[in-house]
Amino acid sequence: MEKAIEVINTGNELLDGRILNTNGQWIARMCASKGLVVRRITIVGDRLDDIASALKEALSRRPALIVITGGLGPTPDDLTARAVAEALDRPLELNDKALEMVRDFFRHLGQGITPAREKMAWLPVGSRPLENPVGAAPGFLIQHGGTIIVALPGVPEEMKAMFKKHVEPILDELAGGLNRYEARFLIYGLRESDLAPALEEVARANPGVYIKTHPRSEEGRFYLELFVASVASSASEAREKMSKAIMALWEYVSSLGGSMMPYTPE
Amino acid sequence: MEKAIEVINTGNELLDGRILNTNGQWIARMCASKGLVVRRITIVGDRLDDIASALKEALSRRPALIVITGGLGPTPDDLTARAVAEALDRPLELNDKALEMVRDFFRHLGQGITPAREKMAWLPVGSRPLENPVGAAPGFLIQHGGTIIVALPGVPEEMKAMFKKHVEPILDELAGGLNRYEARFLIYGLRESDLAPALEEVARANPGVYIKTHPRSEEGRFYLELFVASVASSASEAREKMSKAIMALWEYVSSLGGSMMPYTPE
Repeated sequence: MEKAIEVINTGNELLDGRILNTNGQWIARMCASKGLVVRRITIVGDRLDDIASALKEALSRRPALIVITGGLGPTPDDLTARAVAEALDRPLELNDKALEMVRDFFRHLGQGITPAREKMAWLPVGSRPLENPVGAAPGFLIQHGGTIIVALPGVPEEMKAMFKKHVEPILDELAGGLNRYEARFLIYGLRESDLAPALEEVARANPGVYIKTHPRSEEGRFYLELFVASVASSASEAREKMSKAIMALWEYVSSLGGSMMPYTPE
Repeated sequence: MEKAIEVINTGNELLDGRILNTNGQWIARMCASKGLVVRRITIVGDRLDDIASALKEALSRRPALIVITGGLGPTPDDLTARAVAEALDRPLELNDKALEMVRDFFRHLGQGITPAREKMAWLPVGSRPLENPVGAAPGFLIQHGGTIIVALPGVPEEMKAMFKKHVEPILDELAGGLNRYEARFLIYGLRESDLAPALEEVARANPGVYIKTHPRSEEGRFYLELFVASVASSASEAREKMSKAIMALWEYVSSLGGSMMPYTPE
């Protein structure tokens, strides 16, 4: 059974092109490395209705996990807790543990609490606050039906530290010992449309193996990047499934007059 | 009236973290530079149902424009035309003009048409094919209710060339002479939570001006990046609105003991 994951990244700075959504890619990579599937990434701005509706739509698809980033800070346009409360139809409450986390953060700076700082501790009823080892704003975790919702800050260093601490154990549990293997190749001398029928045949003959080509060009020379991945419940099974598909692809490419070589990015 | 735009980026490579969604950012930037608002960016994989449902949801929000990238190539997992046909409840047809574009592309390479190549010319009934000056796959434009849907390839060079040629004129028309100004500042000596009440007051007193802070740190030193933007129907009005808000912010920052300086990224 597929354990689907959805990601919601919030922030106007992602919608006017000021900032590249590296958070979305990083989370997707973390999930894929465990053999888990991110089914959808949604970016919405700092609008209460947009965040709430994106969350409601994601919940309607019943994923195992929804990760939301951004909107947890002290400014009035930080709206994630309110949007989650609205989507789940639960009130916000001042969470004692979260308030203690915020208080601790500013105590270390020799400072006290203010209304803007207290705002970061107002969470939907039923939330578990998640400690932020880097910044002031706690994250939170809340369950709804069969879905775990985790809200993390948008600042990448804070998001990554909290993801590793609080979300990675959830991923490990969802993955339940799945293994993923992947490999890349470069193919010269063939166009994507030359190879399409062969790809279709190899994909059909090798269920559980994912195959995709990307056309590339460099200094006017065209080539294809080929990506192959497999997921299975044991490492040896995943590797064996993939090898079989790669050998079949290799034979096709050669018979069509192309060449194929392993490739490691960067 | 807000002329909202939605972007749908398709491709499994965006959901397993292999590729950063630079297409989404680039399109968002192009729209914002004209004073237009991207309301949502959705990333879905190469699944017919996921692309079709993302499109249906976007249409239900009645944006002026939906830009879809990816899934137009010759391989079996290139599903965008089928998904658009499904979402709009229209059949696919072999589009004569699109077929001529594909034929021309391969004729220049001294090659003929194959079933995989012909596939790229099957478009939803009522589509206008869009010439691809870089690659083989045509894009297409189709209208539905008050929404213009444009489908472009996922390869960034192809997408950008086609966006400039086919979509930028649509943006200019939607913008109808709107002007956008933006400015950035660095603020030292204050935390986001110190500044939050002032930001709220300045935002309230300056409608049409967008203000956002981002906490940053460098070598253990904390500071804030401040972003201010305004959109108005004349350049002088946009500039004047922004100057007023910036001066108010400047006074607040100074009175709170912080410092604020203009900043140009890169």
